[in-house]
Amino acid sequence: MNGLPSMSENFGEWYQQVILRAGLADYGPVKGTMIFKGYGYTLWKNVQKYLGEMIEKDGVEDVYFPMFIPQSYLSKEKEHVEGFAPEVAVVTHAGGEKLEEPLVIRPTSETIMYKTFANWIQSYRDLPLKINQWANVVRWEKRTTLFMRTSEFLWQEGHTAHATKESADADVFEALHRYDDFLRTYMAIPSIKGYKTSGEKFAGADYTTTLEVLLRSNKALQIGTSHQLGQNFAKAFDVKFVDENNQQQYAWQTSWGFSTRSLGGMIGVHGDDKGLQLPPRMAAVQIVIIPIFKTPEGAAKIKDMADKLIEKGKSVGIRMQADWSENTAGWKFNEWELRGVPLRIEIGERELAEEKLKVVRRVDGSSVVLQYANDIHKQLQELLDESQAMLFRRAEEFLNEHTRQVNSEAELVQALDEGMGFVVFFFNDDKKQADILQEKYKITPRVIPLATENEIGKDIFTGKEGKLTYFAKAY
Amino acid sequence: MNGLPSMSENFGEWYQQVILRAGLADYGPVKGTMIFKGYGYTLWKNVQKYLGEMIEKDGVEDVYFPMFIPQSYLSKEKEHVEGFAPEVAVVTHAGGEKLEEPLVIRPTSETIMYKTFANWIQSYRDLPLKINQWANVVRWEKRTTLFMRTSEFLWQEGHTAHATKESADADVFEALHRYDDFLRTYMAIPSIKGYKTSGEKFAGADYTTTLEVLLRSNKALQIGTSHQLGQNFAKAFDVKFVDENNQQQYAWQTSWGFSTRSLGGMIGVHGDDKGLQLPPRMAAVQIVIIPIFKTPEGAAKIKDMADKLIEKGKSVGIRMQADWSENTAGWKFNEWELRGVPLRIEIGERELAEEKLKVVRRVDGSSVVLQYANDIHKQLQELLDESQAMLFRRAEEFLNEHTRQVNSEAELVQALDEGMGFVVFFFNDDKKQADILQEKYKITPRVIPLATENEIGKDIFTGKEGKLTYFAKAY
Repeated sequence: MNGLPSMSENFGEWYQQVILRAGLADYGPVKGTMIFKGYGYTLWKNVQKYLGEMIEKDGVEDVYFPMFIPQSYLSKEKEHVEGFAPEVAVVTHAGGEKLEEPLVIRPTSETIMYKTFANWIQSYRDLPLKINQWANVVRWEKRTTLFMRTSEFLWQEGHTAHATKESADADVFEALHRYDDFLRTYMAIPSIKGYKTSGEKFAGADYTTTLEVLLRSNKALQIGTSHQLGQNFAKAFDVKFVDENNQQQYAWQTSWGFSTRSLGGMIGVHGDDKGLQLPPRMAAVQIVIIPIFKTPEGAAKIKDMADKLIEKGKSVGIRMQADWSENTAGWKFNEWELRGVPLRIEIGERELAEEKLKVVRRVDGSSVVLQYANDIHKQLQELLDESQAMLFRRAEEFLNEHTRQVNSEAELVQALDEGMGFVVFFFNDDKKQADILQEKYKITPRVIPLATENEIGKDIFTGKEGKLTYFAKAY
Repeated sequence: MNGLPSMSENFGEWYQQVILRAGLADYGPVKGTMIFKGYGYTLWKNVQKYLGEMIEKDGVEDVYFPMFIPQSYLSKEKEHVEGFAPEVAVVTHAGGEKLEEPLVIRPTSETIMYKTFANWIQSYRDLPLKINQWANVVRWEKRTTLFMRTSEFLWQEGHTAHATKESADADVFEALHRYDDFLRTYMAIPSIKGYKTSGEKFAGADYTTTLEVLLRSNKALQIGTSHQLGQNFAKAFDVKFVDENNQQQYAWQTSWGFSTRSLGGMIGVHGDDKGLQLPPRMAAVQIVIIPIFKTPEGAAKIKDMADKLIEKGKSVGIRMQADWSENTAGWKFNEWELRGVPLRIEIGERELAEEKLKVVRRVDGSSVVLQYANDIHKQLQELLDESQAMLFRRAEEFLNEHTRQVNSEAELVQALDEGMGFVVFFFNDDKKQADILQEKYKITPRVIPLATENEIGKDIFTGKEGKLTYFAKAY
């Protein structure tokens, strides 16, 4: 119909084409980079706005640190350098000269920030210190995918320092729950929250928590992580404070990040064969008006009505626009469905005469006729809210229907054969066993859910004690 | 008093220290880089918010392009590469390997964007195309100053493509006037708007317009520029469209930018020996409350009142906070003066009993006693507006008092001796003469004002036809 590949048959092709054709993004000239077009960048601006407000409300201050990190900084924390050194981009020349020390472009900012924390933090009175920055970061990747994995990406990274482990622990979970709140409320995305296994935690962290999402491809995507860094970086960068008993202590630190890959998740969780489906709270355009007219006089009258609707929409915070292009109405229906706009209003001459609006919902294709009245925007807002709620429910259903707990390798194989995305079993966090499973079934440990973290059972391979662990193929 | 160097005696030292002590910024570890602390970054967030709204209102769409530019792109426009090649930072290695082609970190994004414009633009119907991005850019500088000149800085860069020269010209001036509007309304900064001389225009532009500001150091700072790029880049990058007569044409392009150096200008225009002075519309904290109490009971009552004031302030858009630190009231007065907060409210036990507030204005040190009533925030807002207006008037007076038109080299020397910042004379845009003036008096041509662009007079050196041109020492 619109020439898109079928999502269910070829998710990868569908994903790439829907992004390009909806005008969300383009490929950059350098391998692995992408261009955020207006329609796609607005989604990121909405993340910055809504998630940003939540972060600020929790007493975290926005700052900006330089993107250049002296190469030697990266090496100060042993695990950290092993994790990130293979992925960095390095500036060796600047201002026409070879630099004395090469500069790494931040893959994440722990090292440069904590070097500075050592100056900012002297006493327990300076703690907790909570900062956040919205920035671009670079991790050189072999295989890249628009939004989900690009060599340069945009994110926010929060960094906090605390006097005690407990205070830092609390912040790790505050960040995790804030991400969950944002994902549910704005992106209409349900996720599995919990711990990373030891093999998958952040390089330099004591533990990492994560939110894992299941895309329509049946593959998992990690959206947002939050790390307890312990005193590892504090020791490497000498982040010390004098406590209430006048004793020198190392600070406890956390970091947490949420990036443009979340937009890839949103596309992959809600899309369908018709194209994108943008949750109303995130959509750049929430309602598109399609005028259907036969005469210039008819068009003029429809334009009057459309302009009024749009103007009023602006004042009540509903993002609307009309499509006056020269294409046919049918073409426009397809186009705006592909672009994922939650509601379409069709105004024809008959609707005009009867003071009615025909509203079609992207989420289920159903249509409803509204009387054009003073409270019309309230009714539209209700339709938007319903769409938002329905997208969440549908994603939750998909997640539930594609998750299965298994008690043996045979059951695991069967579950994967039967199209499960997440297979869940007791696992004792053994790196070797994880490697075998990745080799045999291409699945990796995604998350040990908070919901069941106290449940202990027998690892289905070794019989040792283990915890319920979600495995999946993943991006 | 607060240990700051005197601004009038040693502007450079004052400037650096006021930034560090007010907590606006810190030096980064790599030479020429800076860290925006929360108090300073909020100023940039306010630029993004208010200038961003103006840009969006004018129909420009926010996008984001990659920061990596293949080195070969930079060379496609001859003047452009000559201007920028000496300043770029170059990535030669990434992902553990030497890159086939080195990557330049964007010093500005014309080349990478216009390469893409060539794909986006096919027909006159695609024009005008207007995009903007908020991003970090890198220009490797030998001499750097916090905010005013740093190797990495933050800015917005607007880029437009048009079917005709006239349409592009109009956009150049729309951008210029938008900057002026923002500078006046929010930063309380008067500027001289006009053309750059040929020696000072943007590398690759037909002409450049600029806003030049005079700091308290009597030196000029260029804040914001807007360029008519003609068809220069269109020819280099093949940005063509089919016009209404079905003819292939090259597009006409503009670009315009406004950066974090503007914050340096704001600091340098409004500051005084006591420290910063932040225009109320830009200030992170518009009003600070200093409690003055003798007993814990007194403190508790004051806290009640302060919390109410702050809460109500939040709801009406006045940014307030109270200083409950353990320092003395006198210390706090100095500290918040140094930090440039426009209004200070002192609440003592007497004020509490009499339901009065003592408000002290940073702009002139005057104080006023307000009755604590329902409309108290309206009165506070009026005081903020008065401070904003007074800062602008004062800056305008300073600008006028330090600008003088001269008719001979002798008058020029005298004007500089007598402490003029801008010396203005008829000048015929001769590069050699400009070099001589720079050599002899350290002054450079800053701007040919729009206000007098049609006035032709005799160049004071050569007697040839020239235009009134502002010269100054500059950052």
